[in-house]
Amino acid sequence: MTELSEAERRDWLKLARTENVGPVTFDQLLQRFGTARRALDALPDLARRGGRTGLKLPSDAQLDKELGDGAALGARLIASCEAAFPQALAALDPPPPVIWARGRVELLARHGVAIVGARIASAAGQRFARGLASELGQSGQVIVSGLARGIDAAAHEGGLPTGTVAVLGGGVDDIYPPEHANLYGRIVESGCVVSESEPGRTAVARDFPRRNRIISGLSRAVVVVEAELRSGSLITARLAAEQGREVLAVPGSPLDPRAKGTNDLIRQGAALCEGAEDVLRALEGPRGLREPERDRFAHGSAPEPDDALRREVAALLSPTPVSRDEIVRATGAAAPAVFAALVELSLAGRCELLPGGMVAAT
Amino acid sequence: MTELSEAERRDWLKLARTENVGPVTFDQLLQRFGTARRALDALPDLARRGGRTGLKLPSDAQLDKELGDGAALGARLIASCEAAFPQALAALDPPPPVIWARGRVELLARHGVAIVGARIASAAGQRFARGLASELGQSGQVIVSGLARGIDAAAHEGGLPTGTVAVLGGGVDDIYPPEHANLYGRIVESGCVVSESEPGRTAVARDFPRRNRIISGLSRAVVVVEAELRSGSLITARLAAEQGREVLAVPGSPLDPRAKGTNDLIRQGAALCEGAEDVLRALEGPRGLREPERDRFAHGSAPEPDDALRREVAALLSPTPVSRDEIVRATGAAAPAVFAALVELSLAGRCELLPGGMVAAT
Repeated sequence: MTELSEAERRDWLKLARTENVGPVTFDQLLQRFGTARRALDALPDLARRGGRTGLKLPSDAQLDKELGDGAALGARLIASCEAAFPQALAALDPPPPVIWARGRVELLARHGVAIVGARIASAAGQRFARGLASELGQSGQVIVSGLARGIDAAAHEGGLPTGTVAVLGGGVDDIYPPEHANLYGRIVESGCVVSESEPGRTAVARDFPRRNRIISGLSRAVVVVEAELRSGSLITARLAAEQGREVLAVPGSPLDPRAKGTNDLIRQGAALCEGAEDVLRALEGPRGLREPERDRFAHGSAPEPDDALRREVAALLSPTPVSRDEIVRATGAAAPAVFAALVELSLAGRCELLPGGMVAAT
Repeated sequence: MTELSEAERRDWLKLARTENVGPVTFDQLLQRFGTARRALDALPDLARRGGRTGLKLPSDAQLDKELGDGAALGARLIASCEAAFPQALAALDPPPPVIWARGRVELLARHGVAIVGARIASAAGQRFARGLASELGQSGQVIVSGLARGIDAAAHEGGLPTGTVAVLGGGVDDIYPPEHANLYGRIVESGCVVSESEPGRTAVARDFPRRNRIISGLSRAVVVVEAELRSGSLITARLAAEQGREVLAVPGSPLDPRAKGTNDLIRQGAALCEGAEDVLRALEGPRGLREPERDRFAHGSAPEPDDALRREVAALLSPTPVSRDEIVRATGAAAPAVFAALVELSLAGRCELLPGGMVAAT
């Protein structure tokens, strides 16, 4: 763990906010160049090789504004290499490069359990979520959820006295739904609000997958309370499983449509949750946070893909995600050179590097 | 499969109704002596060697009465070696030696699915059981249950149009609870009523484990709909698992005490059941009926345990069931001789031979 200087943290933010730089590209660039500064210096050249000139980096004014807005809110910018960055989130492959946190940031150092579920939840489901959060909180778990209506709000309510973290899709000041303004205020006061987005940003649909990934990423276990089939909570549960987290689901009657999703999770292997004991038992299990298996290559080795390789890699891409290892095998070239070519293509906006070692043409 | 003569079937009944002869002892005697007749002839001697004189065999008058009562009801006595004996039940180790069946006996040749559950069931649970039975019936499954209040009755109702089997603890004419007289009448008319007990017998508590064993024994799958912890339905589910049958349970809210038992079954590995599809999918699985693994020894080999071995075996027994194989190992003697000694001791009422290869001192 390193502690960044203000200038270094600003570099991290600048690289994270650069066009076409998602968490995977950020991670690859940092692996290759060692610091955000050196990656920023290399960016124009890399993008040009990938086929793009005039890559848009955030201006000094934009960075000043984001840092100023955050400071005005009393929020703190934390980079994934820093000690204050939540450990479980740092174990993601790749972690979000930076997060904003508002409120009691020290809560992020404790173990989290996510409680998520239907926005249109039954009164019984909400009561259950509140009780579960309260019991788990008393056992020392920080309750993580997404500030949504229904189960999320009930989970935060139950977790408030002992500690709760709300993860937002928009900025840390983007209160949605508006009727949760009071709840939001109490969470800022005695809990913590976290977001990968810049302050002032209003959440749009594509922010929610990233928010869901942080909800599960902050947690050692995710409990789904009431969920219809094909609902967002099930996506969070899938992400959690991919991240090596425990997934639990609360069963319900087959006659209740709000139990279809949770029953289906149990059918697929999620642990059955009837109360805090089940969650605590799951956490006792042998499963630890997975060591991230990154596409590592020693930075400084500066693999330089040639045009032929770059063209070959580009030709292998399709809108259906394929694994980066598969592309390495198909080319027969050295992995570092292929990964470098993929980073260049991603900076040029010709492909997207996805978590889990996948890549798709854009 | 053999077809017994009337005299032979009477011998089977006589041996089955002899004091201290349960299904395991019956099975062992038949293995050893080849026919019920020869076993009956040998009984007094065997019991005496086990330490008991004056073993009570049923009188001719008693047998005449049972056979007459059954005939008067239009019921049929079926021995486990006969073709009309349900195949799945015959695969038990050991099967009940004889059953009485009243109604459409041909239903016993078809595949069965048991639906069981709480007597004090919710309206929703009963509706679910009725619908499940109806759908499974339309898929060709015979619905097996125990004529009890609640889930059992609903399952029979749903299964009546396509075929349902009620298994009773008392005789095939023992209608319990009394308010199910009408349902019972319709089952006799278009379904089938089965019992291991003699006609005219009123069920007592100790008859229900035997009834439960037949419910699961007749079925390839057992579905539990609503059950509290430590309820009879869970015992049926455990028996079913031991018999190699599929066990399914209908999930419910943790706030509903009637779901505690079914949720617990799912936690222990029962398949989650939300409808007929889940049951049919479970039946498609690779699991077939287990070949019974009996303590077989060629009959006629007439192993004769000596007094020393008999004393040694008796000394190894305790009220806590132990496996018969363990006793064989402890004595170091030949298995057939040890099994023969155990049969003698059981006839003398000094031990009980239990299904699953276990034995307990009485």
